[in-house]
Amino acid sequence: MRENLHATYLIHSPADAIGARAQALALEQSIEMPLAALTDARVARDIVAQIESITARGGDLHAVRLALALETVGADAGQLMNILFGNSSLLPDVQLEDVDLSADAAARFGGPALGIAGIRERVRVAERALTCTALKPIGSSVAQVSRLAALFADAGIDVIKDDHGWAESATSPFRVRVPACQRAIAAANRGRSDHESLSQYAPSLSGDLDQMRSQLRCAVDCGVTMALAAPMTMGCSGFQTLRREFPQIALLAHPALAGTQIAPAALLGKLFRLFGADAVIFPNHGGRFAYPRGVCAAIAAGNRAPWLRLKPSLPTPAGGMPVERVAEIVSEYGRDVMLLIGGSLLIAREQLAARSRTFVSAVAQASDAVTA
Amino acid sequence: MRENLHATYLIHSPADAIGARAQALALEQSIEMPLAALTDARVARDIVAQIESITARGGDLHAVRLALALETVGADAGQLMNILFGNSSLLPDVQLEDVDLSADAAARFGGPALGIAGIRERVRVAERALTCTALKPIGSSVAQVSRLAALFADAGIDVIKDDHGWAESATSPFRVRVPACQRAIAAANRGRSDHESLSQYAPSLSGDLDQMRSQLRCAVDCGVTMALAAPMTMGCSGFQTLRREFPQIALLAHPALAGTQIAPAALLGKLFRLFGADAVIFPNHGGRFAYPRGVCAAIAAGNRAPWLRLKPSLPTPAGGMPVERVAEIVSEYGRDVMLLIGGSLLIAREQLAARSRTFVSAVAQASDAVTA
Repeated sequence: MRENLHATYLIHSPADAIGARAQALALEQSIEMPLAALTDARVARDIVAQIESITARGGDLHAVRLALALETVGADAGQLMNILFGNSSLLPDVQLEDVDLSADAAARFGGPALGIAGIRERVRVAERALTCTALKPIGSSVAQVSRLAALFADAGIDVIKDDHGWAESATSPFRVRVPACQRAIAAANRGRSDHESLSQYAPSLSGDLDQMRSQLRCAVDCGVTMALAAPMTMGCSGFQTLRREFPQIALLAHPALAGTQIAPAALLGKLFRLFGADAVIFPNHGGRFAYPRGVCAAIAAGNRAPWLRLKPSLPTPAGGMPVERVAEIVSEYGRDVMLLIGGSLLIAREQLAARSRTFVSAVAQASDAVTA
Repeated sequence: MRENLHATYLIHSPADAIGARAQALALEQSIEMPLAALTDARVARDIVAQIESITARGGDLHAVRLALALETVGADAGQLMNILFGNSSLLPDVQLEDVDLSADAAARFGGPALGIAGIRERVRVAERALTCTALKPIGSSVAQVSRLAALFADAGIDVIKDDHGWAESATSPFRVRVPACQRAIAAANRGRSDHESLSQYAPSLSGDLDQMRSQLRCAVDCGVTMALAAPMTMGCSGFQTLRREFPQIALLAHPALAGTQIAPAALLGKLFRLFGADAVIFPNHGGRFAYPRGVCAAIAAGNRAPWLRLKPSLPTPAGGMPVERVAEIVSEYGRDVMLLIGGSLLIAREQLAARSRTFVSAVAQASDAVTA
């Protein structure tokens, strides 16, 4: 019995040509050969992608929904990306708009290990929106960056992540930098009462799967509970492997290299969640990037909506958010959100500690307003 | 002493705003924070990306060349992608047009292990253009696909690669399929004289780095000398790791998921070569994809031109090429090329063997014409 997953593509094509375009797409994303060359009835029945619908979307835009054979994917995230969009990513006028699959299929990928509830447990914050900032700039010494980590933790920021540009370097190797930052943050946590939140450190992983695994082991050994990784840079299969091997670690997915013709709502909203991201960082509207408000809302909806029995991912709007926008952001996304603010804190320079506390209290206040 | 690599970006911007855009780009791809927030003189000097030039390209298009600190990259391909274009890939109007680095920096990445000469040695073809085809369709049984491999080898095709959609599946697991195909091809080679070419099999790798490594070991154990992998799907760091661990294997890079705002001439032409692709498959003009002729020429030039003391990669135009275009393709690219033709053979169905021989002889003839 053939099992499918479903993908919707947007194609610009005159109405009289869209049928042929849809058929070409179905072949491109499955058997990669003309149907006329196919001699195997089993492959025709069980493997060739099937056109489920073609819907006009106005102008020459059409949505084509395909049924892709799950048999060709198994439970490998990289192969899912390949079958969804591998070759078609090379076509200039095709966008992957959406993806859907059964809960049974999704269970094979697994989704978040911790989800929003698990992250809340780690930072010991039951209800309010969470705060996140980044250790910058890359190139700082270990002494500098761990001092910064201490300052952010002292200010009560929930998640202190590495900038995603940190990589193995002579000036601050992971094995030196990460334990130092973790010690600084743990020290700040030590003075807190049971009713206060706990700051958590999320170091950035780099290199190939072996190196990331070794970095993550080192991080776990010194008490780290979260980590940052970029699925599109490292490969989605590897991301999924880390997810499986480190179920106790909250994985924050970074969108580096995610600028493709895959709709952000599908990639950051759903696929990253499917592959196991406990939190998904995305460029919020009105910042340094140009994602429209509706796209950001769709990413957050994809992260949090009930979907295939997967745990929800924590949407983490970022990308040049100033502290002044905290109330607006919390009001828009509600409390199940993590606000990532970096540069807008650091710009305060000598007033960095005060500015960080302002960020923390602004998020708390804005969360109360949402509750009310 | 600061060492740099150089990246050129295309940005649409009014002339009076391009300076600010260029500065924003330099920060985005290095310290990810406002310059005004930076307090560390060493980071300002050694880490922040520097604008080398801004060149008007007509209309509102500008080329911005940045010097990116090599210190932030090391020798990791994934981190290079991250620093080149990680965040900026999320910007709708920025394209990475070109990349350049010193020969010393390139040596750390390594480039092709075998290059064109190494591939020629494996297939025992000194001068003519090479032939390549693909085992299709995915979903075929091991018996079917190995029969097809035998047929292609008997026809004298040089490189018989898996379709890139093959992955671990119940109907044809790698450990069964690959030895069977390799045996079929080796059997065809056995009857050949020393003056004849040797057909080689290039199975497709899938999954995470561990799985690919284990697949490749299995392949090597049964005599395979080539393999297919997609750097953008698996992650460039992992591709580089396979390159280092299997220097005797010719790596064919597949362009799956390579549809980004990185110019194909930079990504397929240069970066894949830098990361170690002995051959680079790309969609030729006039086929199922829309790469213009000039882009294809630039990819081939990037693969083969003397560059940083790296071995050349073998350009492999593909993507819906019919046998009828062989003469034109060889005439365009010359003899240091591999023609990948798949569906146009299979469409012959009962005449597949004859059509495959026609392909082989057409490439030989076209190569003679280029020599003359």
